[in-house]
Amino acid sequence: MFGASTLVVKIIGSIGSVSAGLDLGKEGPLVHIGACFASLLGQGGSENYRLRWKWLRYFKNDRDRRDLITCGASSGVCAAFRSPVGGVLFALEEVATWWRSALLWRTFFSTAVVVVVLRGFIEYCNSGRCGLFGRGGLILFDVSDVTVTYHVNDLLLVALVGVLGGLLGSLYNYVLHKVLRLYSLINERGRMAKLLLSLAVSLFTSVCLYCLPFLAPCTPCDPSSETICPTPEGSGNFKQFNCPSGYYNDLASLLYATNDDAVRNIFSTSTPNEFRSISLLIFFALYCVLGLVTFGIAVPSGLFLPIILMGSAYGRLLALALRSFIHIDQGLYAVLGAAALMSGSMRMTVSLCVIFLELTNNLLLLPITMFVLLIAKTVGDSFNPSIYEIILELKGLPFLEASPEPWMRNLTVGELAAAKPRIVSLQGIERVARVVDVLKHTSHNSFPVVDQGAPSSPGGTTELHGLVLRSHLVAVLSKKWFLKERRRTAEWEVRAAFTSVDLAEKGQKVEYVKLTEEEMDMYVDLHPFTNTTPYTVVESMSVAKAVVLFRQVGLRHLLVIPQYQGAGISPVVGILTRQDLRAHNILGAFPHPANKRRRGQKQESMPAYWLAQTKQKEVENREEDDDDDEGEDG
Amino acid sequence: MFGASTLVVKIIGSIGSVSAGLDLGKEGPLVHIGACFASLLGQGGSENYRLRWKWLRYFKNDRDRRDLITCGASSGVCAAFRSPVGGVLFALEEVATWWRSALLWRTFFSTAVVVVVLRGFIEYCNSGRCGLFGRGGLILFDVSDVTVTYHVNDLLLVALVGVLGGLLGSLYNYVLHKVLRLYSLINERGRMAKLLLSLAVSLFTSVCLYCLPFLAPCTPCDPSSETICPTPEGSGNFKQFNCPSGYYNDLASLLYATNDDAVRNIFSTSTPNEFRSISLLIFFALYCVLGLVTFGIAVPSGLFLPIILMGSAYGRLLALALRSFIHIDQGLYAVLGAAALMSGSMRMTVSLCVIFLELTNNLLLLPITMFVLLIAKTVGDSFNPSIYEIILELKGLPFLEASPEPWMRNLTVGELAAAKPRIVSLQGIERVARVVDVLKHTSHNSFPVVDQGAPSSPGGTTELHGLVLRSHLVAVLSKKWFLKERRRTAEWEVRAAFTSVDLAEKGQKVEYVKLTEEEMDMYVDLHPFTNTTPYTVVESMSVAKAVVLFRQVGLRHLLVIPQYQGAGISPVVGILTRQDLRAHNILGAFPHPANKRRRGQKQESMPAYWLAQTKQKEVENREEDDDDDEGEDG
Repeated sequence: MFGASTLVVKIIGSIGSVSAGLDLGKEGPLVHIGACFASLLGQGGSENYRLRWKWLRYFKNDRDRRDLITCGASSGVCAAFRSPVGGVLFALEEVATWWRSALLWRTFFSTAVVVVVLRGFIEYCNSGRCGLFGRGGLILFDVSDVTVTYHVNDLLLVALVGVLGGLLGSLYNYVLHKVLRLYSLINERGRMAKLLLSLAVSLFTSVCLYCLPFLAPCTPCDPSSETICPTPEGSGNFKQFNCPSGYYNDLASLLYATNDDAVRNIFSTSTPNEFRSISLLIFFALYCVLGLVTFGIAVPSGLFLPIILMGSAYGRLLALALRSFIHIDQGLYAVLGAAALMSGSMRMTVSLCVIFLELTNNLLLLPITMFVLLIAKTVGDSFNPSIYEIILELKGLPFLEASPEPWMRNLTVGELAAAKPRIVSLQGIERVARVVDVLKHTSHNSFPVVDQGAPSSPGGTTELHGLVLRSHLVAVLSKKWFLKERRRTAEWEVRAAFTSVDLAEKGQKVEYVKLTEEEMDMYVDLHPFTNTTPYTVVESMSVAKAVVLFRQVGLRHLLVIPQYQGAGISPVVGILTRQDLRAHNILGAFPHPANKRRRGQKQESMPAYWLAQTKQKEVENREEDDDDDEGEDG
Repeated sequence: MFGASTLVVKIIGSIGSVSAGLDLGKEGPLVHIGACFASLLGQGGSENYRLRWKWLRYFKNDRDRRDLITCGASSGVCAAFRSPVGGVLFALEEVATWWRSALLWRTFFSTAVVVVVLRGFIEYCNSGRCGLFGRGGLILFDVSDVTVTYHVNDLLLVALVGVLGGLLGSLYNYVLHKVLRLYSLINERGRMAKLLLSLAVSLFTSVCLYCLPFLAPCTPCDPSSETICPTPEGSGNFKQFNCPSGYYNDLASLLYATNDDAVRNIFSTSTPNEFRSISLLIFFALYCVLGLVTFGIAVPSGLFLPIILMGSAYGRLLALALRSFIHIDQGLYAVLGAAALMSGSMRMTVSLCVIFLELTNNLLLLPITMFVLLIAKTVGDSFNPSIYEIILELKGLPFLEASPEPWMRNLTVGELAAAKPRIVSLQGIERVARVVDVLKHTSHNSFPVVDQGAPSSPGGTTELHGLVLRSHLVAVLSKKWFLKERRRTAEWEVRAAFTSVDLAEKGQKVEYVKLTEEEMDMYVDLHPFTNTTPYTVVESMSVAKAVVLFRQVGLRHLLVIPQYQGAGISPVVGILTRQDLRAHNILGAFPHPANKRRRGQKQESMPAYWLAQTKQKEVENREEDDDDDEGEDG
């Protein structure tokens, strides 16, 4: 997912798709490229051409790798929008499932580096030496030239922008979901189908962009305006396109331009009569269609720019329609429309607000932007989840929801663990053959290690020693660190044989380890490799609390232990992974809890200590549970 | 801490102290006022005049109260700096120990409301109807009128600003720590001492502000400048103050002004010759002294503005000294100086960056601001902790550090629990007299409930049922919900007697519950009030992991259970609270782990799963532990 080949494909693909004029955002590929770089750095290079620098080993653990990927993603957003703080907040709000303060300033540092480098290139390219690079300076869509003075009725209109934006955004999510499902059916048919689909969309885009401006009539230039009209250069507000001198074609100004320039033109302030409604309507309709059909094709793409294009056209159209009531510039309405649609579809607040501030450089617009974003988010949230959640759901990625579903209170982790296949546990000192067998025939990533009870404990019980990771087992096998007899090893033996780098090594496969018959009959002491204090929960704990623990502490495995230990009771009930705790997967195994969803429980995220506070409620819930269980028996 | 009387005192005190011209920030009291409002709303009004609105009951739980307080604090910052996004990020970076995405947009909503209301008042007061209110519009210190073009050597100078800012900031922290300690000694002597101290500081401030401008000579106005000089109005850049017409006194411009105006004057751009170095030096020295002596006196005060005043003078002084090398406006250097000192003292990054952006409205300055902030933070972090941590440490508030100390890996929670006094546990069905006795003679907030083992379990064992809260016990006592005989109650009995509001009630004292002799001899069934699934850790878990769990999930109590259960072993080893897990308190009980601090361990925060990744390291650590234990025995 983050390999070197992905990186190359993404870079070339994204250059190609942007040059083709497809309706897609650069921020998606840039985020991915940033994450790829970070991940490769964390691995110490690609699988095949691995760099063996010593200092790179420090990153070689899950946590630093995750941090690096977050930094990479925020750098990508920063590079796409020249928005350093927005990039940090985007990572905070969307990317990182698990946050800590050190990560905050690390991402901040990475975006600071990006923006200083970017600024350096812009300074260097200012004289036009690098083509279009650096156009717009550090601020892509500057609208700081108009001051914002607003009245009470403007607030109402702005609220309308927000409400409609929320509606449109959730509608967009709904339709895009359908389109993506259809596309996944097409894409499954093989490479040819993928290629044809991409070609078709690309052809459709080109034809529309080329032909539609012929529909629009020429508009006379406004003689009172100070700007040059028609624009002489390649990019500009007033494209001449087939028109006589002194006239321009407004649709061509929007369509015969890069996506960035189109946004800049729609956002342009103090030009109330530049675009006719019909042109804007054509533009809006075209980009609605393109925004829906382009995202799912097999090219690297992002969602920001398509939605900004749609939203800005929508905002400007609304401003044109309500021309006589508004006191704010139409260009600013376009900005607000874009913000509303973004928030209606992506449901982010703080990061979008800062990204828009950094894109437009109009601080006085900030209060209204916040207002619009919140309204659009609220309206959108009442219809469907955010577009990112929809996409993650479609891709089946194990993304744990931010807060547990209310019905998770009614299910215990014990029930959940019981529904899984019986767990495979290893003895503290285990035969090599058995370890190999277990590794080959299961796909679990960690195994509980149990010991026969100490002489002092009640006879016959097994005791839990801890969890051992698959990667550590493979490392032990490939080092052939075996014992002839069943004995506990001393610490120094382990230290002599393994360095922390050996154990941090990942991706080794048990299939590549060749063992002789003799070796298979030997023993291995797993105690030194066992994490003796994994996070555990008691089987009677509700799934909701387990989800909070899992997500907040950033776990991979959660060990479920029985409430009462004793003779004959296994010391481990089960192991839960991220996949097991996803609402979608739980509903597969337990269809009935979801039905309780509408029993008037507070539809709220739930902190860890909710239980102590809502004891009475839980008493009621437990009774409900009992009823249900009886119903199942009957 | 967040009561109604605090609120009134803070409001009056803060108006008084700002009017007196003391060197203090409004944001401290405003944050506190916001938090007080939020807390009162969460309680449903003050203790004595409690509003009994039904909907307020929804906030009556710990989580919502915490959220409300966070929203209140961010609204305070927003109101102080007219910085909505900065307020949210401040809450994120400094205030909230425990974060979730819902909180992000809730604080965002509250600051959006603040800024819309503020904007409304500014619009209304624009005509001067409300005195100085609304001066500066939504942007307090606007420096957007100069464009920033910088060269490579400017980056070096800016780095110098950052390094010196970090040094000065950590020096400030150090000296302020000493001053606050001295003040706490003085303040302990009673109200009279407090009052005298405040009066002395106030008198000193007034005398300095009044007398110092007499030292400065008159400066001739710059005839080429377009601004009116001397300034006719009360507030302005060029104060005439005893000078003939055509002349101004630059020190008077800084000292005969409100703190906000002084900052505005130092930040003023395109005025390279306005201030003489000697005047700036006097100003800087004065505000260094005032900033150190004012904060600890018994008036509501904040730290932002004093540090901004110091920092801006420092930045401008540096720019004056390096006049011939710099290409950026001196006013912007003042901004950077302020940012550097803030970051050097407070160690925030993203929130400071956004607050400065929103204060100054110069987006092009953003990359350099980020650069300066990061350098100053890094330099400062190498000397001492942030000023907030120092103050929390001095006040002894139970603030859990963001990440565990490295030496915490070498201590288990079992050892920590063993060092505490023996825990008091209750029986599942307990005598009333015992409950009263336990409540009166301990101050714990929760108690483990243990049951005699079920017949099926090995004989003689006690089993843990869960945790019961003190507030629930008091509620049960005051409802006199007692039983004549030892029996388990049914669920409906509890439901008939208690509503969830009864149990959410807090602050009741056991001393006010009057019980007769007869009632004392009765029994109470604690099972229905017990949280049967508290978060538990096994005694062998390291303190570091427990701290991560505690902090990330936002717990109040953590139950420590024995690694192996069995006959004769208590099912609870202990209960750990926030106080028990603070590094400072642990070091009191276990002085030796801190000595290991410099054993070359990675000075890093540690996630939950570090153990699995650094198994080898832990093996080494464990050996060290063994050595130490032997040392103690010998």
